[in-house]
Amino acid sequence: MTDALVARLRSALGEAAVVDDPDVLDSHRHDHATFSPAGVPRVLARPTSTTEVAEVLRAAGSFGVPVVTQGARTGLSGAANAIDGCLLLSTARMNRILEISVEDQVAVVQPGVVNADLSRAVLEKDLFYPPDPSSWEMSTIGGNIATNAGGLCCVKYGVTSDFVRAVEVVLASGEIVRTGRRAAKGVAGYDLTRLIVGSEGTLGVVTEATLALRPAPEAALTAAATFRSIEDGIAAAAAVMASGLRPSLLEFLDQPTLRAIQDYRDMGLPGDVGSMLLAQSDRGPRAAEDVARIAAICAEHGAIEVAEASDVEESRMLLEARRLVNSALEPLGTTLIDDVSVPRSQLVALLRGIAEIGAKYQVLICCPGHVGDGNMHPTVVFDRNDPAAEERGLEAFGAVMELGLRLGGTITGEHGIGTLKAGWLETELGPVGLELHRRIKQAFDPDNLLNPGKVLQAF
Amino acid sequence: MTDALVARLRSALGEAAVVDDPDVLDSHRHDHATFSPAGVPRVLARPTSTTEVAEVLRAAGSFGVPVVTQGARTGLSGAANAIDGCLLLSTARMNRILEISVEDQVAVVQPGVVNADLSRAVLEKDLFYPPDPSSWEMSTIGGNIATNAGGLCCVKYGVTSDFVRAVEVVLASGEIVRTGRRAAKGVAGYDLTRLIVGSEGTLGVVTEATLALRPAPEAALTAAATFRSIEDGIAAAAAVMASGLRPSLLEFLDQPTLRAIQDYRDMGLPGDVGSMLLAQSDRGPRAAEDVARIAAICAEHGAIEVAEASDVEESRMLLEARRLVNSALEPLGTTLIDDVSVPRSQLVALLRGIAEIGAKYQVLICCPGHVGDGNMHPTVVFDRNDPAAEERGLEAFGAVMELGLRLGGTITGEHGIGTLKAGWLETELGPVGLELHRRIKQAFDPDNLLNPGKVLQAF
Repeated sequence: MTDALVARLRSALGEAAVVDDPDVLDSHRHDHATFSPAGVPRVLARPTSTTEVAEVLRAAGSFGVPVVTQGARTGLSGAANAIDGCLLLSTARMNRILEISVEDQVAVVQPGVVNADLSRAVLEKDLFYPPDPSSWEMSTIGGNIATNAGGLCCVKYGVTSDFVRAVEVVLASGEIVRTGRRAAKGVAGYDLTRLIVGSEGTLGVVTEATLALRPAPEAALTAAATFRSIEDGIAAAAAVMASGLRPSLLEFLDQPTLRAIQDYRDMGLPGDVGSMLLAQSDRGPRAAEDVARIAAICAEHGAIEVAEASDVEESRMLLEARRLVNSALEPLGTTLIDDVSVPRSQLVALLRGIAEIGAKYQVLICCPGHVGDGNMHPTVVFDRNDPAAEERGLEAFGAVMELGLRLGGTITGEHGIGTLKAGWLETELGPVGLELHRRIKQAFDPDNLLNPGKVLQAF
Repeated sequence: MTDALVARLRSALGEAAVVDDPDVLDSHRHDHATFSPAGVPRVLARPTSTTEVAEVLRAAGSFGVPVVTQGARTGLSGAANAIDGCLLLSTARMNRILEISVEDQVAVVQPGVVNADLSRAVLEKDLFYPPDPSSWEMSTIGGNIATNAGGLCCVKYGVTSDFVRAVEVVLASGEIVRTGRRAAKGVAGYDLTRLIVGSEGTLGVVTEATLALRPAPEAALTAAATFRSIEDGIAAAAAVMASGLRPSLLEFLDQPTLRAIQDYRDMGLPGDVGSMLLAQSDRGPRAAEDVARIAAICAEHGAIEVAEASDVEESRMLLEARRLVNSALEPLGTTLIDDVSVPRSQLVALLRGIAEIGAKYQVLICCPGHVGDGNMHPTVVFDRNDPAAEERGLEAFGAVMELGLRLGGTITGEHGIGTLKAGWLETELGPVGLELHRRIKQAFDPDNLLNPGKVLQAF
């Protein structure tokens, strides 16, 4: 028996663009969130144009079928996971860079363009697209927009939303709307662009984006410093941020993370090192001077050892520890990565509290993070084959979010809500804030067909 | 006969906080928009706390009275103008700086704090609040947030919304909601903070704001260059922006503006100068080098004369022409200031088109502007006592917006819609975009009591 929705989609998009093969559908059920439920989709549509996306949404609407939009499915919160009976809308084939303008310093792209492909293409014109989530080699601009992705260089350049000038969006109704503008400034009406960015596919489907670019910086130089304690490392980071320097990267590794890295590969990190800072400057001819100032600040704050790279290769080596974090943690068990973000003044309290939570729930919590932004990645590690350990791990994960909120922070600095944290959203927003969210969702998507249950739980 | 609304407000806020004296009310009818209608208000409430603002909104709601929130009434689009029978809610007495945190680089303020007061207070702690609208000595942070105010240093630092981390807002219902976060990064839910910023008092009343600060830069140095043509000046500006330099100011003056300035005060500007660029760098020890590079770029683009300041006093003198613009234009007639913003690649077309519009409608149009952002201030000058001239002036004003849109820009880069441009909003947003705006307005303010008719015309 033919599925009428599949038939309608095939007549609109062509055979090849509409997939109902169960194996293919199964391979598209999940994003990278470890613990988020995923349903069984009904069909996968792979449109290539805005018009086709509008056709897909109209078809889904007339069948009352929920739509889950997917990019590269590298998200960490389950926002791109399938819902039972849903239509998966993949933007993977909408992967054209439509324009790179040197004069206006903008790129116009389709949502399926991979971040790294865009970054490389603009670099050829001496331009720079800063947002650099760890997934940048795989993740798409559409996914980066949906989650308002961050990354390592946010500390200097900001996050995805800071670079989205305009979007073209298809609404649940199939109507097409353009928000924002190619010009650098504009205040005509409400900021719908920022409302769409980070809305995790619940308000519309982004089919085109105009992104701000900058002149390309030169290759960055790195400084690395080890400290006896958390306090020294955090104090040094605060001093770097207060100095007026604008590091293009400022990362922190705590003792459990450093031990895991050292166990994974001998980096000559003594077991009693309490924390490590890594910093970069990309100011070209000034980078060496910046790195020397950062090194001096670290030394003033009691650093055990300070290293300054004098070239790109040394810089790469100094960053190696940061790059090894995920590989080093993987052999230790299942990981559940949190991304609480707190005011910088609360970082010591956060790190001390996380150690207490680890002790209380008897799980390992490693805490690397983007310290310049106060955005940390407490990573709960446990043995998934041990149900008791898994339960304790999940409780610890929640306790970390609770702590982040208590310290004036947020439950998610850059990964998003998805389903993973949807139960926590009201705690952060309060009932009035949540109700406003629901009314905005209804304003955009009155039948609740776009990624229902993500961000906002059933209502 | 006592007005029941006034009586209720007095019992909630005290006698002195509630004004119904017709002279005082009359003095509060207008912002700085020249041509926007203003009604006769019923009462002026001057609350001092969030709780009192909530009382005011509940009282207005139960009487079905529209509420117009006012800061310093320095806006240029009529957004703060009274509506007949309205309640004016002045935030002027909510003028406390609640906190300046050096460690977190944030300030927490009430909405009635004057921009300059905040700027000076944070500077004492070696911090910097960048947004600098021309009105900064008078305008309030609440007003800056309501209009998403820009300014001269946007070209390097961004606009108001780039510095608003969190707001406390009282909704039309009297409910209080907090959006955003003190932390640098956060993606929990929709970006309600950005939705509030620039909403011109139509979605809620901001009662507190958490603002991001930066380390204070050093005093800026200035370069100034004159050119034979518009094209040379614009090409030099484009080259400065492409150079990787980050000027902290990049301003343009066209020939009609330069002539008006020279007529007003002898600055030694020959009448055949076609355009002028002013640029600053605030990079401390590097500023002199930056200014020299900017000067060299101007020379390469055919500058007639280039001047580089070597100290703060010389910098001030070079900027004098820019500072005199408003004083120089005032004696020439009534001015109607536009603020179209276009992609930089369209600036020559914009300036050429504006000259044609001036010729067609037989009005003088001077065009200074924030050229680095493509945000220009075409200023239509005419004799208001001549009805035919006034009509031609208003038509020219509209034609400039139409031109800006045709060039891929926006009708307003930083002044907002208010009533002045409300009739133009649909042209920019399109019917679907406008309908989304209406639904969002309804989600926040179902009875349309907050600044009705501003931004969105009656619906």
